[in-house]
Amino acid sequence: MEPAIHPRVQEIERRANIWIRRSQMCATDDEYRWITATHSVNFYARFAPFADDDRLLATALWVYWGFAFDDARCDNGPLSSRPDQFAILAGRVQRAVEAPSASDTRERLIPPLQKIVGTFRTLGSPVQVRRFALAHRAWLSGVVWQIGNEAAGTIPDLDEYLGMRLLAAGGEPTFAMLELANNAEIPAGELDSPPVRALTEMAILVAALDNDRHSAQKEAMRGHTGQNIYTVLMRHHRLSLAEALVSAAALRDRVLDRFLQLAARVRARASMELRTYLQGLGHGIRGNAEWGLRVPRYLSLGQVPDPLDSSTSLHWAESPTDPRAAPGVTPSIAWWWDENLA
Amino acid sequence: MEPAIHPRVQEIERRANIWIRRSQMCATDDEYRWITATHSVNFYARFAPFADDDRLLATALWVYWGFAFDDARCDNGPLSSRPDQFAILAGRVQRAVEAPSASDTRERLIPPLQKIVGTFRTLGSPVQVRRFALAHRAWLSGVVWQIGNEAAGTIPDLDEYLGMRLLAAGGEPTFAMLELANNAEIPAGELDSPPVRALTEMAILVAALDNDRHSAQKEAMRGHTGQNIYTVLMRHHRLSLAEALVSAAALRDRVLDRFLQLAARVRARASMELRTYLQGLGHGIRGNAEWGLRVPRYLSLGQVPDPLDSSTSLHWAESPTDPRAAPGVTPSIAWWWDENLA
Repeated sequence: MEPAIHPRVQEIERRANIWIRRSQMCATDDEYRWITATHSVNFYARFAPFADDDRLLATALWVYWGFAFDDARCDNGPLSSRPDQFAILAGRVQRAVEAPSASDTRERLIPPLQKIVGTFRTLGSPVQVRRFALAHRAWLSGVVWQIGNEAAGTIPDLDEYLGMRLLAAGGEPTFAMLELANNAEIPAGELDSPPVRALTEMAILVAALDNDRHSAQKEAMRGHTGQNIYTVLMRHHRLSLAEALVSAAALRDRVLDRFLQLAARVRARASMELRTYLQGLGHGIRGNAEWGLRVPRYLSLGQVPDPLDSSTSLHWAESPTDPRAAPGVTPSIAWWWDENLA
Repeated sequence: MEPAIHPRVQEIERRANIWIRRSQMCATDDEYRWITATHSVNFYARFAPFADDDRLLATALWVYWGFAFDDARCDNGPLSSRPDQFAILAGRVQRAVEAPSASDTRERLIPPLQKIVGTFRTLGSPVQVRRFALAHRAWLSGVVWQIGNEAAGTIPDLDEYLGMRLLAAGGEPTFAMLELANNAEIPAGELDSPPVRALTEMAILVAALDNDRHSAQKEAMRGHTGQNIYTVLMRHHRLSLAEALVSAAALRDRVLDRFLQLAARVRARASMELRTYLQGLGHGIRGNAEWGLRVPRYLSLGQVPDPLDSSTSLHWAESPTDPRAAPGVTPSIAWWWDENLA
């Protein structure tokens, strides 16, 4: 899992910023600054380092959009504890993704989303666009679940948290876009096979647990939703914060270890398109961590985001965290370790 | 769209009733009586009249399960106006469908659902099972949306209602099971193509509008959720109930008319598996109406369901309702009439 990034990342980021400004996706200059400070082109340029420029631009635009929606409608703002209102909005947003003729201007974020998905329709096959749409619903269903817990005043137990986080993290649509970015459609028999589903979920969870780590400080400071791997482990496993940090890292490393083992086995008899996809999952895990450790979204604690400093050198652990520190594997994800999986 | 029903419907219904009794899906004898009175084998035997017995049994069991879940957790009961609690439950239920190792006995309806989906895994391909799982999520997302409206005290406008009802009606998983019942996997390029998506949605909407008609009296009498095509048209289009009945029928007939026209065009260049599926959509539209006009679920107004009387003769309209009585086609579904669709 060597680092890789698209060679024209800066040029494409400039194009993205212009698009975002013109799309009226952001209600204020302040919002524009924070959304562009997600540097989502830089993010997705690590997932799909070999994509055509137009494909990287289109897929990265959805990442910006996802952050904008998340910030304005999910993690904070008036809907973050209103599951009724959010469920209605999620339904309307998803319909706008699926129905090309849908028109819903009451939510300002819907028209730019439809423009992005419209581009997907011109770049990708109906199968790829449908897969993205279904992944988009999976994401929204996870956010509804998260907001349900928030409104109910519940910190879920670890098993439920993992099931929820696999969806709410947004990894489903993010990885579903790999096909669009790489212009490589995976045969359904491969993509829907249990080992490839397991690999997709494992990649999502590793990235999501990394994001929990990256955003922990900022979430705490800004009073965002209380559900993350640390609060879950502290509440239900009676760990201190220091212990929860180690335990979560051990779980993350254990999942990554299984991912690497299973991916090698699946790759051996995979089509070229599936190999490209598996490579993309790996790029995504690595790229998400590189991006998350540097991006002003998580690092800037002030009113205005700092510039992205790509020169910061990152230090990686030499070996996995002691797996004995990890919590036991829970039923929702236990099947990833099924010996008969592949 | 001639009527058709599986020849061994009664034998398979007996097997289903035994399975349901043993599964402990129903908490009380009363619940068992109402659930078996849905005669879901009789329902799905019309969708898949040529299925192998075991395949019809397995798919019909999910229909029973869906009714049980609907009755206990969606349409009435304590969660029907608790979007937070329902969103959490929907997340857990869906994870139990997707993760073979999931274990969640806090909700008594989850273990029997997992048994049914486990059977799907032995009968169907991973692609078919995955398609069912994603359709299952679509359904639950629609129910969350409906409960969101209920909790917010909102009767949605027609456009939103159609988008919601397409999901909440349960047609997505019901029609997704056609592949499992008929043992015929549709190539992804066909199933995910816009005209076939449109046909699937049209079949769902026709059946859902028929269900609105079948259950209108019972819902009104039992104080169920106020969202149906009639309350929507009365509220937002200022129609009387008598006018709303005609207007809804005209909309339904207009959709069916387009379905028939488009299906004929698609069938001409369809694979055998897709032709089987399109046939199943037609069987489903017809079968749903035949079943819904007779089933004690909608007809029995007392404490105990009446027996199913299959001898009642049904009268069908000779011609469609005057299309001028239909409300204008709304943006969410306008693309079904796109001339370039097929």
